[in-house]
This record gives sequence, structure tokens and C-alpha cells, in this order.
Amino acid sequence: MTPDLQDLSAAASAGKGVRVRSLLARFQDVRTATEAWTELLEPGDFVLQSMPDASPTGWHLAHTTWFFEEFVLCGFAPGHERFHPRFQYLFNSYYETVGERVARHRRGMLSRPGIGVIREYRSSVTAAVSDLLMRLEGDELERALEVIEIGLQHEQQHQELMVTDLKHAFSINPMRPSIVDRPPRAEPRTIEGPTRAIIFIEHDEGLFTVGVNEGEDFTFDNEGPSHRVFLPAFGLADRLVTCGEWMEFMEAGGYDEPRHWLSAGWARRNSLEDRWTAPLYWENRDGEWWRFTVHGDAPVDPAEPVAHISYYEADAYARWRGLRLPTEFEWEVAAIQAGRDAALDGRFRESLRFEPGRASEPVEPAGGPARLRQLFGDAWEWTSSAYAAYPRYAPDTGALGEYNGKFMSGQFVLRGGSCATPESHIRSTYRNFFPADARWQFSGLRLARDSQN
Amino acid sequence: MTPDLQDLSAAASAGKGVRVRSLLARFQDVRTATEAWTELLEPGDFVLQSMPDASPTGWHLAHTTWFFEEFVLCGFAPGHERFHPRFQYLFNSYYETVGERVARHRRGMLSRPGIGVIREYRSSVTAAVSDLLMRLEGDELERALEVIEIGLQHEQQHQELMVTDLKHAFSINPMRPSIVDRPPRAEPRTIEGPTRAIIFIEHDEGLFTVGVNEGEDFTFDNEGPSHRVFLPAFGLADRLVTCGEWMEFMEAGGYDEPRHWLSAGWARRNSLEDRWTAPLYWENRDGEWWRFTVHGDAPVDPAEPVAHISYYEADAYARWRGLRLPTEFEWEVAAIQAGRDAALDGRFRESLRFEPGRASEPVEPAGGPARLRQLFGDAWEWTSSAYAAYPRYAPDTGALGEYNGKFMSGQFVLRGGSCATPESHIRSTYRNFFPADARWQFSGLRLARDSQN
Amino acid sequence: MTPDLQDLSAAASAGKGVRVRSLLARFQDVRTATEAWTELLEPGDFVLQSMPDASPTGWHLAHTTWFFEEFVLCGFAPGHERFHPRFQYLFNSYYETVGERVARHRRGMLSRPGIGVIREYRSSVTAAVSDLLMRLEGDELERALEVIEIGLQHEQQHQELMVTDLKHAFSINPMRPSIVDRPPRAEPRTIEGPTRAIIFIEHDEGLFTVGVNEGEDFTFDNEGPSHRVFLPAFGLADRLVTCGEWMEFMEAGGYDEPRHWLSAGWARRNSLEDRWTAPLYWENRDGEWWRFTVHGDAPVDPAEPVAHISYYEADAYARWRGLRLPTEFEWEVAAIQAGRDAALDGRFRESLRFEPGRASEPVEPAGGPARLRQLFGDAWEWTSSAYAAYPRYAPDTGALGEYNGKFMSGQFVLRGGSCATPESHIRSTYRNFFPADARWQFSGLRLARDSQN
Amino acid sequence: MTPDLQDLSAAASAGKGVRVRSLLARFQDVRTATEAWTELLEPGDFVLQSMPDASPTGWHLAHTTWFFEEFVLCGFAPGHERFHPRFQYLFNSYYETVGERVARHRRGMLSRPGIGVIREYRSSVTAAVSDLLMRLEGDELERALEVIEIGLQHEQQHQELMVTDLKHAFSINPMRPSIVDRPPRAEPRTIEGPTRAIIFIEHDEGLFTVGVNEGEDFTFDNEGPSHRVFLPAFGLADRLVTCGEWMEFMEAGGYDEPRHWLSAGWARRNSLEDRWTAPLYWENRDGEWWRFTVHGDAPVDPAEPVAHISYYEADAYARWRGLRLPTEFEWEVAAIQAGRDAALDGRFRESLRFEPGRASEPVEPAGGPARLRQLFGDAWEWTSSAYAAYPRYAPDTGALGEYNGKFMSGQFVLRGGSCATPESHIRSTYRNFFPADARWQFSGLRLARDSQN
Repeated sequence: MTPDLQDLSAAASAGKGVRVRSLLARFQDVRTATEAWTELLEPGDFVLQSMPDASPTGWHLAHTTWFFEEFVLCGFAPGHERFHPRFQYLFNSYYETVGERVARHRRGMLSRPGIGVIREYRSSVTAAVSDLLMRLEGDELERALEVIEIGLQHEQQHQELMVTDLKHAFSINPMRPSIVDRPPRAEPRTIEGPTRAIIFIEHDEGLFTVGVNEGEDFTFDNEGPSHRVFLPAFGLADRLVTCGEWMEFMEAGGYDEPRHWLSAGWARRNSLEDRWTAPLYWENRDGEWWRFTVHGDAPVDPAEPVAHISYYEADAYARWRGLRLPTEFEWEVAAIQAGRDAALDGRFRESLRFEPGRASEPVEPAGGPARLRQLFGDAWEWTSSAYAAYPRYAPDTGALGEYNGKFMSGQFVLRGGSCATPESHIRSTYRNFFPADARWQFSGLRLARDSQN
Repeated sequence: MTPDLQDLSAAASAGKGVRVRSLLARFQDVRTATEAWTELLEPGDFVLQSMPDASPTGWHLAHTTWFFEEFVLCGFAPGHERFHPRFQYLFNSYYETVGERVARHRRGMLSRPGIGVIREYRSSVTAAVSDLLMRLEGDELERALEVIEIGLQHEQQHQELMVTDLKHAFSINPMRPSIVDRPPRAEPRTIEGPTRAIIFIEHDEGLFTVGVNEGEDFTFDNEGPSHRVFLPAFGLADRLVTCGEWMEFMEAGGYDEPRHWLSAGWARRNSLEDRWTAPLYWENRDGEWWRFTVHGDAPVDPAEPVAHISYYEADAYARWRGLRLPTEFEWEVAAIQAGRDAALDGRFRESLRFEPGRASEPVEPAGGPARLRQLFGDAWEWTSSAYAAYPRYAPDTGALGEYNGKFMSGQFVLRGGSCATPESHIRSTYRNFFPADARWQFSGLRLARDSQN
Repeated sequence: MTPDLQDLSAAASAGKGVRVRSLLARFQDVRTATEAWTELLEPGDFVLQSMPDASPTGWHLAHTTWFFEEFVLCGFAPGHERFHPRFQYLFNSYYETVGERVARHRRGMLSRPGIGVIREYRSSVTAAVSDLLMRLEGDELERALEVIEIGLQHEQQHQELMVTDLKHAFSINPMRPSIVDRPPRAEPRTIEGPTRAIIFIEHDEGLFTVGVNEGEDFTFDNEGPSHRVFLPAFGLADRLVTCGEWMEFMEAGGYDEPRHWLSAGWARRNSLEDRWTAPLYWENRDGEWWRFTVHGDAPVDPAEPVAHISYYEADAYARWRGLRLPTEFEWEVAAIQAGRDAALDGRFRESLRFEPGRASEPVEPAGGPARLRQLFGDAWEWTSSAYAAYPRYAPDTGALGEYNGKFMSGQFVLRGGSCATPESHIRSTYRNFFPADARWQFSGLRLARDSQN
Repeated sequence: MTPDLQDLSAAASAGKGVRVRSLLARFQDVRTATEAWTELLEPGDFVLQSMPDASPTGWHLAHTTWFFEEFVLCGFAPGHERFHPRFQYLFNSYYETVGERVARHRRGMLSRPGIGVIREYRSSVTAAVSDLLMRLEGDELERALEVIEIGLQHEQQHQELMVTDLKHAFSINPMRPSIVDRPPRAEPRTIEGPTRAIIFIEHDEGLFTVGVNEGEDFTFDNEGPSHRVFLPAFGLADRLVTCGEWMEFMEAGGYDEPRHWLSAGWARRNSLEDRWTAPLYWENRDGEWWRFTVHGDAPVDPAEPVAHISYYEADAYARWRGLRLPTEFEWEVAAIQAGRDAALDGRFRESLRFEPGRASEPVEPAGGPARLRQLFGDAWEWTSSAYAAYPRYAPDTGALGEYNGKFMSGQFVLRGGSCATPESHIRSTYRNFFPADARWQFSGLRLARDSQN
């Protein structure tokens, strides 16, 4: 923590309530974590952009800062002078209300401002927001707290994207660099005993309440309003599908049999430029499967949850098994019933430097109790639910209303959280979403089935 | 009706039950109607393909015939010799199970077989199917009846596509040809009195049963199984949005304001090659709006339902009005409550040669009773529901399982039916589906809202 | 010949000089030949467009007519009323001076006007031009004769394109239709004795005059002005490269060895969508090479000249042999020295229904005299000369100045003429030109070498 | 100079002849100059790639080093151990003979090796080559000297590309960064007196010898063999076309009138994504023209030579003036007659940090002597000559044969040299070449005309 921030904290302890102090502490933690994560990078890494959907690390650092400047400082600090007049244009992501911006696919051209200036920008805005927080009172304070909270959540989302975007960029480099310094494991981990078969946890049909209304704890607008849905009886797998199981699909010709595939998925799989024959980052070397990880190349571990698959692949896999993906509401109802504790064997942000499931234990001795596992912290789980508004959903007014609502077409909901998701960021009602062909996230799957009742 | 068919009918009357006779009659009607529709075309019209999504008329004629040959004759007539060995390859649309086929975007290259041969192909298969129907008995007859029924419904779907595909092709020709021979109206029709404002029909919240199980009457597999959904209270507009109302949206800058638009829709609207500023086929001539119709160019009639809009535009319009699109279940529940009679002012296949709503009366005297109108026969209605499987949906086994299920990603459901839909083809549970940017169908919208209770 | 034309001819015989009568006769011949060629086609064939570079047959029929209407009737017949006001827009090819036109890749959408109307258009313009010719006198007549001559030459160029464009379209149709009715040969023709090796005809260095100035006989503006070029001593092959020799190249891995290829050619050869492994239209069936011809599929005849190769392939072949392509001036100097008679074993327009070299005898008994053969009427010959203006070249003024000059970048010159070129159309100074990757013309190659003096 | 190099130089002085010492000194100069040029860059700048044709600065640094390692060290230093086994793959540009390589458009993904490692790579190879040079003798030394000379010339070519590629990348950054630190001029330079009109230097017709054979001084293989060409009488402008004259073309609607343009150029000009209305980097601000320079944005100076135009634009301009571009031989003959001194007012590599013509004086008092000016050091001059082999040209054998010959299609020759070309690199016979639509080089034009004799 920098001296200025210590002083501010002191001031905060003195004059402000617990809520403000707590938010301030979290604010400083999140900002620091973002920066710490980039310490091992080479300077050139900060501008890499491997595809329009992925952004350079330096841009993430600046954009998360712009968010606080635009919505907190410009909104609540009268007379705030922007750090640089062009940054509003450079680091706006997609807020039409805020104005024009650099074309998404051009972000990799922004070597200037250099990373040194971006770090100054971060420090300057972090300090100014902290300072502002000390000065505000009453209603204005309340409203600012809300926006800062959104800013924190926003920055946590970008922490995850920083990992997945850079991993994608590195995967293209024939040097196969590591994001983190731990050497890749040379041999697949030995699994004690056979992987236990999936057990389906059964749920009776019923009318369930899903989603949350705005309240004490932060949630995004797209997680609400709370509403009722009717669900027929269903069973949900106790764990994620593993790499070993995925290899069975591959060996059975799953990638070559159109009957398993959605029509759009089959067309995508056949793309001349990039034909799919395995999950993203997998490579067959003399009959053995390897994959590119944040540590560089490593053999595929059959016991780990499979990740880096598209919706189309997840759906084809389930169909091949004679099963299906869960809906997002089946997932939510089951997760809530299981309780937060169920999640604890997931791997969280603290283990950011690990691959999905790396240290997890998807293998449970035969006869162990059937319970939902790996809900959070391993891999995002594709659901069969198209990303859409809940009944009576209304986006926020103003520019922040563009945060979630305008993406409600052409995407599918993922639930849970991955090994790159900060632990404090996820919850049972959280709705992540990506297009059906996206593979560069840590995305995997959990099987579901109709109950035979 | 050709002599052969008359004979067959006679035979049918003699030896078969009413069900068979009725199906045979419908079969002959549908086949004849398809052919009759093409009588006014120029020979060159039959091979036009204006985009990969649209197929040439000649291909439609042959493909609907191939369907009967492949699934009926090859399935139920042992020793059936195919009309031509290459036709399986030429006229298969998307059935992977059946084998390779001509690339979709290459259908416009098939000037051979010529239209004469295609007509022979039609006659030959029509006769052979009729003949087969007379010969089959017992279980085989039952199963064949089912497949023939699917073939009829399939051909009816293509009857509509023949209209919309050819309309699209003709719209590109600077000669602006008519599909039908009625001269275009020179002047907009005079509307008696003002267009009455939309009235919202209110529905209480509740648990509703939607969809249908297989039964006596034909339905597609994607319309079932029947299942329960919970719906909050809602209101549904009594009529479709009109061209006049759409012009208000345009005049208010609706096409230029990103706040109304989904992100993907806004990107599409901005496409360099084809920027959207009005519905498809509309053109501004010296301040007056004209549009291309099946009769050639005609002025836009403010009282008609708007058509040829994408999901993105429909959604933007609703948002601009502070309202929303209905879900497909809201639509279905309301339509079932209204009853089939409610539909009767819609314009059906019989009036195929008319534009959507051309002869309809969307204008009702102020004070008239509020009831659902224009449900069928004017324009397909975009709903906010992504096209997905109903709970416990299982596609048919075999090649016909590819009919609906494999398209369940990336599309939205449309309900109702259009002026180009055969009347006997539509019903309240029918689910049409298209991608969010499709505009060449007769697609319009009906507004919905959350009830303030 | 139609009655009207006969009458006109009679009138011509009576009152006009030999030049006018001769031109009128040729005009009628050319117009008639164009139409005769299309008699065997199916109606749907007339609108096929398989790629932007190729045009539909119906469009060719109309465009060559538009040319006469635009430049002759509108230029010389005051008060001429256009056959249809939209045809100027529909059938203009690339004359910017004349105004807007249908986008090139959209020509395949023009099913209207139907082929019946296009034929009326042809008759009407043919008659009007003939009539005009009878009426004009003095300077006006002179100028009109010039433009009509260009129109004839223009129509002859399109006669060749009608063959190559339709052949390309048919090649995509899995029915593999014949353009002409002669059945394809089932077996490769037996060659009497071995194919004699190429003999190089040597030429001393010197200053040569190439190109022609405008004069008595028609030439295109790009064939002049006549000017001097200095050529080092060179040898030119007495005949074209045969399919048999080309197969040696293929067997030696010529398509897989980048050392032989120009960089741009290698990139094109590697195109994901359309990787080159043989000449266009060739297909390997169980070890034997077949190719698509105007008669449908036929085995490759090793003794025939190879055709349907790009400049890149021709160049790679020559490099592989340790030789090179000739420059266009080497070709012209040699052709002029050889004299017109040298060309007579080439196959001309009269044999339009034959493939290149089909009936030719590229095989000459060992010991026979070395002389230039196959200069005209088999296949166009790629030269190493980029298509450029001759010194002091000035395009015609007015719209016809767009005829040749504006294409002088990015193309290579081909010399000679093909089996689809009308005999009266070609000569030693003629410069055909296509982009380096074009393969749908009857394009082959003749080898050259530096003389060892 | 590093200590090692000093020692080597000392050794060189002692034991080797003048030629070796001279080459060694030049080698060190060129290597040092390349590195010096990058000293002001930000770390992120080294990986920028704005289009497939342009490469990142870091890649240039490494590729020019790879060239020496591959062709000198691996060729002449038995047992040489490569600096890194993957660098052969990473930093090969287009040498098929040498093996696979990173796809051209992916060079911007190579943030690893980091710039630090690349600099070590440079030092290591520079030292090893210097060392090798001391050890070799006899024939091997001779051959190595030749290859090192090519390597030097190659690195000088990349010095120019480093400027133009980075300028292009920076132009996309809304921060409009400077490559060099001199502040941009705020005001257009005041021109003393009016710009004198162009004077044409006349040349009689004749047979001229152009090109050079291999000899004492280095030339690229494509500059020979020496051979004779016949040229009609011509006149060549004494100076380049200025920005002021270009603005006249723009004001006269030159960019909007298809008659001036080659067909392919007009199509390119109309590209939806990037419509041309001015030279690259020009921007109209409230009626005044500015352009992006290596110093950032600056007003256009009417007296400077115009640069960053394509062949298409140069050709259209000349046509608009009723003139034409010179052929490459006209240029060469005139340049040789003018003598090397004529070039001295050009701006050379020493003034790398200046824009083209920045400090030049294209304005000469009326009445001054007519002589060729600005031949070298301002802007490359488009000629009307397609890039092709000279008679009897034979590329080098081995991988270096790929240097020039394989690009001989689809490009035009530029003569002279630009403000970014190292002075020691250019000469009258030098042939630069680019595609007709390339604009990111400092490419301008000099007019020519046919003499009226």
C-alpha cells in the first residue's frame, strides 16, 4: 500500500463508518491485485491483442481506471480535471452514451500511452477516488458508494479477462511463454484409484424463486428481479466433465459426427481456417494430448475438468452421452440448495496461477456421499439458457445501463466461476455470458438429465 | 388434377378409409398449389439465388419432391428406383444423415436439370407416392401416413419461402418485377378516420400449460412436449405495429440512437455494406416512402402492419416506446385464450398474391371492443424468446430428427403467421424461428408490457 | 437471316459501296452467330453467374446489343428512342462515362428482362443499325462505320467469353452438363507415335518494330502505336506445352515446390478455399486424370495443349524446365516472321464446339521441319509482359476510351487465340490480357529461352 | 561501439586487407545505426503491427540479425550453435527454402522474446560475424564477404521499413505520437516567392544501355544484367510534384472523376472501408489540410514533394495533367546523364528524422537553370514499369535466390530514394517495388511526357 493510501485509510478510520472503510479497503485491495498480477510481464506483453474479442493487458489496466474516472470522479467530484483529455476516447469500451471510442480490434495499437503512464494514471485515479470517498456525505456518498462498488466488480471481471486474453495471445507465440513462473508439470499427475462415475443429484419438480432483487449485497442488474419459474424434475451431475471423459468423446469420433452437433456448431467446427478437433489449446504430440496453459505447455491430466470448450462442443458432448446441459435455473436452484459450502473445493482467484482444476480433487472414493462439487472456482459451466432479460428487468438509467442489458441476444449463460475468477466476485445468482463459439474462457460443462419420475 | 391422379383418387375412394382419402386429397392439393404458383414466372426466374439463405424457385420445387422420394418412396417402396441418381445430392437441403449435398450458396448454379425435367420429377414422385399410399396397409401404412404428413407440412413451409426468396431476388433487379400480375396500387389507400391507438389486453399471472404433445392433429416435434410455465401478469397489444407508427420511430431518429438497440443489432445496423435506415425494401423517394412488394414498387400504406424488420429493429422499436416484445409463451397463452376465431381477420395463403395486411383492416373505430387481432395471416411476430428446446424435448430418431432440433441456437421464435403462410399450416403453438438479423421474411411485431398490478 | 435483314442487304447492294456492304454482311453474320450459339441452352442457363468475373449468357446477349444502341444508335441516329429506358443501366458493363450500372457480381440476378425480350432487343437493334447504315453519308457514315466495327469486334470478344463463362458455370453443376451436344469421347485418343520433343526456333538480336498504327484493317487502340524495341537473341518453342508434359510437372511435385513459384502465385496456390493441384477443371479419378470440357467430363489427352492454367502456373512450369515464358514482343516478332500461314493448324471459332487442340496434331514425326505451330486457335499463350501502354499510346476520346486503357495495371498479356476465338478476330498484334490468377480462359503456354550466342 | 567490437577492429586493422576492414567498419556502423534509431521508443512500440504488410520494430531488429545468423554463421562457421533454436522459425521472413515461419500477419504477437533478449541476440550475432570475418581466408572469405554485403544492404532496407512501418502504426493511435522528439512545426513554412513551374528536361530517342552487371560495387541481382533498350524521345520533369500541386488536383475533383483513374485504382479508391480522398495520413481540419508525420500532426506544406500516394493516384494525377509517369528506363537514363551530383539536394538517411522534403528546397527562382533535382532522398518515384526481370536475369542459387526474383508479378517499380533511405544504399540503377495500392512508403511522383519532335 502506498503512503497516500495509508493516510487516507487513517482518515477513513477516524471519520467514516464501517461501510465506507470496508469499501475503501476492498477498493485498495482490488486495485493492488490487478497491478500485482502484471509484475512478471515483459513490456511488450502489455499491448498484445490476438483477436478483437480479447484486449491487451495495458488496455485492461487503463480501462478499469477510466471506469472510475468517468463514472466516479466526473460524476461526483465537481471540477475534476481528467488525467488526459484523450483517455476518455482511448479507454472507453462500449459505452455509446459516453461517446466515440477506439475500434475494439485496434486496441492492440495503443503502445502510447506507455505502461509507465498507465501506471501513473492508475495511481492518480486510485488516490483521487479514495480522497473523494472521504469528502462525500449523505445522499451523494450513498450514490458514489454504489458506483464504486460497480467499479470494483467491473475491475474483478477484467482481472479474469486479463488472464484469459493474455493466455490466448501467448498461445499464438511459438515460444509458448508462461504467464506465471511456476514450471509446467512434466508428467500427468498420478490419480489415486479410478475416477468415480458421475452421480446425478435429483431434484423434484416445483415452482422456484430465482434471481435476486437489489439489496444489501451487490449484484448486477441482470441477476434480477427475483421471480418464479416452474421446473420439471431434473438431475444434476455432482461434478464437472473431466478431460479423461472428453478424450472418450474424441476417441468415439465425437468431433466427426454431425448428428451430435447443432447445425451452427457443425458449420463452425468445419471452418476452413480453424477446424475444431479438440478443445482450444489442445495439441496431439505423437499420440499424447498436450495443452497450452498459463505455465506453458503441459500434458493433459485426465482427472481435471475439461475447459476451453465452446457451447457447441459442450452441447454435442451431452447429446453424445444421451444427456443434456442444465438450464441456468436448474443450476441456480441446485446451487442454492447445496449451499455456499458446497463450493469450497473449487479453486479461486487466490490460486489464479493454477490451471482449472489443477489442484482440485474431482476424484472421490467410490461410495462417498453424492453432493454438488466444483460449483465455483474451476470452470465456468455452459447452460442451455440463452442470455435474456428476467421478467420486469429494467437496466439502470444512464450510461451504466449499457453494462449488461444490451448484450441480451446471441449469447448463452454460464454459471459458477473459474480458477481465474476472484473468489469474492462470484455467487449462485451470477450470470456470465458468451457467444456459443467462444472458447478462450475457462469454460467447461456439468451434465444434467430429466428425472425418470 | 392430372388423369393419373384422378384414377388414383377413385381407387382411394373405393378401398381406403377416410383418413387416407383425406390425406391423399390434401397431398394432391398442396402439390398442385406449389406448381400453380410458379405459372407466371419467366424461365430464368427459377434459378435465381440472391443470398445463401434464399433458394431458387426451381430448387424449392425439386427439394420438396426429393423429400417425398427420400423419406417416403425410398423408405416404404422396396425396389423404388430413384428418378435420377444425382438428385439425392442435388436436392438434399441439410440432412447430414442422408449424405453430402450441393453447398447452400451454390444452389443458384443448378440450371440443369431444367425446369421441364423438374416438373417431370414432381409428377413422377407425386404419382408414385399416391400409388404407394393405395398399396400400403397396417403398421406400414400408419408410419407412411406420418411421414407424408410431415412432407406436406414441409412443402407448405417451402411455399412461403418461395414467395419470400423470390421477392428478395426480384428486389435486386432494377426492373422491379412483379411476382404476381396485379398492377401495383398507384396511390396509398385512403384510410377512413384515424388509426385507433393500441389497446393492451391484460392477463393475470399464473402457471400455464403451453406446447402440445403428439396427437391426432399434426404438430412439429419442437411444439412439444406440453409443459407448465409461470408467467407474471402482462398485457399484449390488440394489433400489430403499423407502418405509420414505424415512420414515427424513424422520424424520432430511432435508427440513429444506440440507446434503443441491442449491441449486436447496433453493430449490424452500422454494417458498411448495408446500413439500415428503414425496413427492408423501403426506399425514400423525394420525401415519400415507397417499398418493393410482390406487385413491384408501391407507396407505403401507414395503416398496414409493418413487415420485413429484423428482431433487432423490433426490439429497438419496443424499447423506444418504453415497452417490450412478448415472450413466446405470453403470445401462446393469449392466442389460445382468444380462440381460433380471433384470427379470422388475418390474411391467409388464399391471398398469397397480396402484401401483408394489404386488404386487412387494422383500423378499428374508436370505442370498438378490445380483442386480439391479426394473430395469423399478416406478419410473423418476433418474440423475445430464443429458440430452444422445451423441457424433455426429444427430436425424432433418424434423418427427420434433423428437421428442427439442430437449429436451436442463435435464433429467435416468431409466432403467428404471415400473408404468405398457407392457412392450413398455422396454429397457436407453431414456432417459427429466424436469426436476429433476418429481414426477408414477412416479419413484424406486436407490443407487450408488464402489467401494473 | 431474317427477312428484314435480307431487304436491307438488297438496299445496300443497290446504293452503297463495297465497304459498307461488306461491313453490313459481317455485322449480320456476327449477330447471327452469337444467337445461334445459344440455341441448345436451357432457359435457366441464361442467367447463371458463377463468379463476379463471369457474366450470364443472357447478359452477354443484351450487353453486346446495348453497345450498338449506346454508341451507334444514340450517337448517330437523332431521335432514337431507346428500346427500354432501364437497359442503359442494366447492360452497361464498365463505362463510367455512360453512367451508373448494375454491380458486376449482381448480373446473375437479371432474370428480367426474360430471354424472349432480350432476343427482341437484339432484333430491334440489329435492324435499326442496319437501317441507319443505309441512311448515313459522308463523314457521319465514316465515323459510324468505325464505331460499328468496334462493336463487331466487341461482340466477337463476348462470343469467346460466352463459352468460357458458361463452361465455368456448368463445371460447378454436379450434373456436369454439355454446352454442345457431341458426346464426350470415352477414351483418350490414341496418338500415332511418340510426341516429338519441342524444337526452339532461334531469332537473332535486333531492333524490331512492333505494334501497329491505325490503318485500313481494324486493330484495337492498345495494339499501337507501332514502335521499336530491342530484343536480345531468343528461341521460341515450335508448339504449345501439352497435357502430357504438364502431367510430368505434376508428377515431379511441381505444385508442391515453392522454389518454382512466384511469391504471389504460391500464396494463391495455397488458398484455403481453393488449393491448386492441377489445371482448372482437372480431376483425378482413381489415378487417371479427367477434366470438364464443353462436352462434359472427358479423360485428359496427353497430346493436347494444356489449357486453363494461370500465369502463375505457366511461369512455374517454365522455371521448373529451366526455361521461361516469352515476352509479348518476342512472340509478335516470331509470329510475324512465321507469317499468317503458320497459324493454319490452329483450331478456330468454326470449331467452337471443340476443346482446345481437340483435333489438332501437336505431334509431328521426328525429323519434320521446325516451324512455329499452334499460334492461333488452340489456347491463348501467357507472356511474361505486364499489360501496359505502348509508347505514345493515347486512348480514344469519349466513352470508348475506356475500352482498353484503364485496365493497364495488374494484368499480363496473352497472345495468339484459342479454340473459342472467332477466326476473323485474331491477328499477330492482338493483345489479350488477364490477371495472373485467371484460369477460366483457354489459356496455355509456349516456352522460350535465351539464345546461347 | 562495444569493447569486443573495438578489439575485433584492432585485429582487423592488423591482419586483413582494406576491403575486409572497410566492410567490417560498415557492418558495425549499420548495426549500430539500426539500434540507435530505436532508442527513443517505448517498450510497447516494439511489437506493434498495424497491417500484414508492416512488421513490428522488434521483429525488424531480430529478422535482420537472423539473416546474418542464417546465411553467414550457419553457412560459414562450422559448428555454429544457434542463439535460440526457435529463432529460425520466428524470424525468417519469406525464405521457403529455409523452412516454415510465423505467419506474416502474426508477427505482432511476438512479445517474447522480449526486446532485451532481441538486443542480446543482435550483440551476439554482430560479434560472431565480426569474429568470423577475421578467421576466414581465401575463397571462403570472398564468398562470406558477398553474403555479408547482402546482409548489410538488407539491413539498410529494413532501416527504411522500420520508419514507414512504425509511422503507419502510430498513425492509428489517437495520441498521434512522434517517432522522433522534435516538436512538430506549428505553422506551414513560409515559402519565399512563388513555386516555379516544372521544367521538362528533354532527351532524344536512342538505344540506351540500362542496368548493371555484377561488379566491384554491390548491386542487387534484379538491377542486371545490363542490356539495351530503345527509348523514343521524352521529357522528364526537373522536380517532384508538390503538395500544393496535389491540392490543385484535389480541388479540381481529381479523386471523384473516374476518367482519370485506372479501373483497378478506381475500385480501390471506392473501397467501403477506406475510401481515398487524399494522400495517406492527410486530414482536413476546418478547411485546412494537416497530415501525420514522424513528428506527429503538422500542417501540409505546399512546397514539399507530395508523398504517401499509391501508384493509382500518381497515375491519375499525371493523366489529369495530360502527362504521364516515366518508365523506369527513362528515369535511369536521365539520372545517369544528370550524374550523381544532381542528387545532392535530396534528403538522406542522415536526416531520417525529417519528413520528405522537409528541409529541401523544391522551389527555385524563376529563370534558374533547368536540371534534374530531388532524384534521391525525398520520395520514391513511381514509374509506369511493372516490376519484371531484365533479359537473361537469373536469380542467385540457393535461398538468397528468393530475395528479389519471386516478387516479379503484380508490382510497380519505384526509382530514386526517400528521406528514410540510407544515403549509402541508393543509386541510379536501384529498383524498389511495391503493389499499385501501397501508400505507406514515402512514395511520390515525377512527371514525364512524350517529346514533340
